[in-house]
Amino acid sequence: MTAYETAKRAYDAKTKPRGSLGRLEELGCRLAEIRGFIPRTLEAVIVVAAADHGVAAEGVSAYPQEVTAQMVANFAAGGAAINVLAREGGARLVVVDAGVGAPTANIARGPAMTRSAAEAQIAAGRAAAAELVADGIGLIGVGDMGIGNTTSAAALCAALLPAAPGAVCGPGTGLDADGVARKAAAVTRALEVNRATAADPLGVLAALGGFEIALLVGVMLGCREARVPVVLDGFITGAAALVAQRLAPASAGALIAAHRSAERGHAPLLEALGLDPVLELDLRLGEGSGAALVLPLLASALALLRDMATFESAGVTDSGR
Amino acid sequence: MTAYETAKRAYDAKTKPRGSLGRLEELGCRLAEIRGFIPRTLEAVIVVAAADHGVAAEGVSAYPQEVTAQMVANFAAGGAAINVLAREGGARLVVVDAGVGAPTANIARGPAMTRSAAEAQIAAGRAAAAELVADGIGLIGVGDMGIGNTTSAAALCAALLPAAPGAVCGPGTGLDADGVARKAAAVTRALEVNRATAADPLGVLAALGGFEIALLVGVMLGCREARVPVVLDGFITGAAALVAQRLAPASAGALIAAHRSAERGHAPLLEALGLDPVLELDLRLGEGSGAALVLPLLASALALLRDMATFESAGVTDSGR
Repeated sequence: MTAYETAKRAYDAKTKPRGSLGRLEELGCRLAEIRGFIPRTLEAVIVVAAADHGVAAEGVSAYPQEVTAQMVANFAAGGAAINVLAREGGARLVVVDAGVGAPTANIARGPAMTRSAAEAQIAAGRAAAAELVADGIGLIGVGDMGIGNTTSAAALCAALLPAAPGAVCGPGTGLDADGVARKAAAVTRALEVNRATAADPLGVLAALGGFEIALLVGVMLGCREARVPVVLDGFITGAAALVAQRLAPASAGALIAAHRSAERGHAPLLEALGLDPVLELDLRLGEGSGAALVLPLLASALALLRDMATFESAGVTDSGR
Repeated sequence: MTAYETAKRAYDAKTKPRGSLGRLEELGCRLAEIRGFIPRTLEAVIVVAAADHGVAAEGVSAYPQEVTAQMVANFAAGGAAINVLAREGGARLVVVDAGVGAPTANIARGPAMTRSAAEAQIAAGRAAAAELVADGIGLIGVGDMGIGNTTSAAALCAALLPAAPGAVCGPGTGLDADGVARKAAAVTRALEVNRATAADPLGVLAALGGFEIALLVGVMLGCREARVPVVLDGFITGAAALVAQRLAPASAGALIAAHRSAERGHAPLLEALGLDPVLELDLRLGEGSGAALVLPLLASALALLRDMATFESAGVTDSGR
């Protein structure tokens, strides 16, 4: 019997109609499936990767590039949304500087980075995941910070799904219609200039990605190898998951999608990943905020398996339904 | 400026694009609106009202009537889903016996209870709410336990929405198609026999309700008076909210719908209450389980207001978006 089936049977023995906790039970079974056993608890961490993007020069963000570094300072001081939400979700916050103040090249004019730079970021992400796993972490929520990174994520989606730039470019942190048009134009140029093909996902990542996205790809590959669940946040982390899936199809097996974000392009991206998100709260912040918000639901799913009585132990009549 | 607007402005000053936490911000604003101020935290309790239903004799549940008492014993022993979920959600659990082992009369043959019995349950619910508020409770999640109570809730919906019995009768704890047909037939008979009209909501409650539903109506009326938010669970608590709304239209202003359940009839009920639920996880357990699951999201909404830095305090450039 698989760990998924063992968990399903354990839920079915508990004092409640079978399946009556719906997706919560499914989430508990998924966690067992990914881990290979039913975890009693999962010590969680939120990994936020941060980097700057040369494509910010194309006027594709509502915020100036310096906000990336300012927000990383805000993370360090404990004042950002993810500081609050990680704490509320019972998770430690780890912020990884993948290139703050040292932006990728502008993807609208050429490749973002070399293949070896992409490989180095992936290796760094893998190493970060391995270190956390060695520390006893049993679940990693992923997040991002990087002014301009919805443009990079949209370009990755356009190349890999594939999709028309207009179908995957949205307002990000708050662009108006002109800004979204500039973003779609930048993605169109990036695809033309770089001629990356979906058959070469590492090449696509190097051409169109960001340093933080490449690092998150590595975190996801490392988590899959360690059988540690990865909780995706929104559009950026989803784009990283898409790259990981194309590099190693099995990596999608370790993913849980926290939410469907308000950002255009997130819905087709989730569909391509085969993921049905848990929450739908019109979030569009990033930082791992959605991943942190879903942690209490995952903890509850495991607590039910751990702490509920069975029909037998509680002497409750079982209808078998 | 209203408390809702004050909360909205406070969110807008925080280091994140305006509105980027979507419904989470809206929930924080709603909590402020209901309380009349921005609460720093909300001490929460889950009130589960339990009672037996004479209509169980019509074969409308997958479980025998004795399960109500068995589950109340399970609550006392700490082994039920709501024990686990309330604890995970940081809430105290209060179980109120509104008529366990002393069922209402069978609504398919006559009125469930007298008008004065309905009034007494409402008064008991109001008193319970007042006592909790006096103890410092700032938010009440509501739940139910009672074999047969989806039939009573369906009858209340059919009479008050109004709706055809078939449109509000679902499988409950796990009825097959024949069972659902029996339930709809019982509701049809209950409406014919009792001739309750929507213009007399107390009469409808007495004719078709259950003791636990009547008690929950009182809890909701009491919470509205005390400006304490009520988090609804699923179909049964929603039916109680519908009765409360018809008795005192303003009472709906204190309600937050935790989730849209898998039970048929819950969707039109939420629509009539004007509520957009937070979660959609195919839950159909009751006991307040969905209400408990939403508590961490509400706590996070308030924590953001309390603990996040502002653009000004953190020195982050504000785009004004």
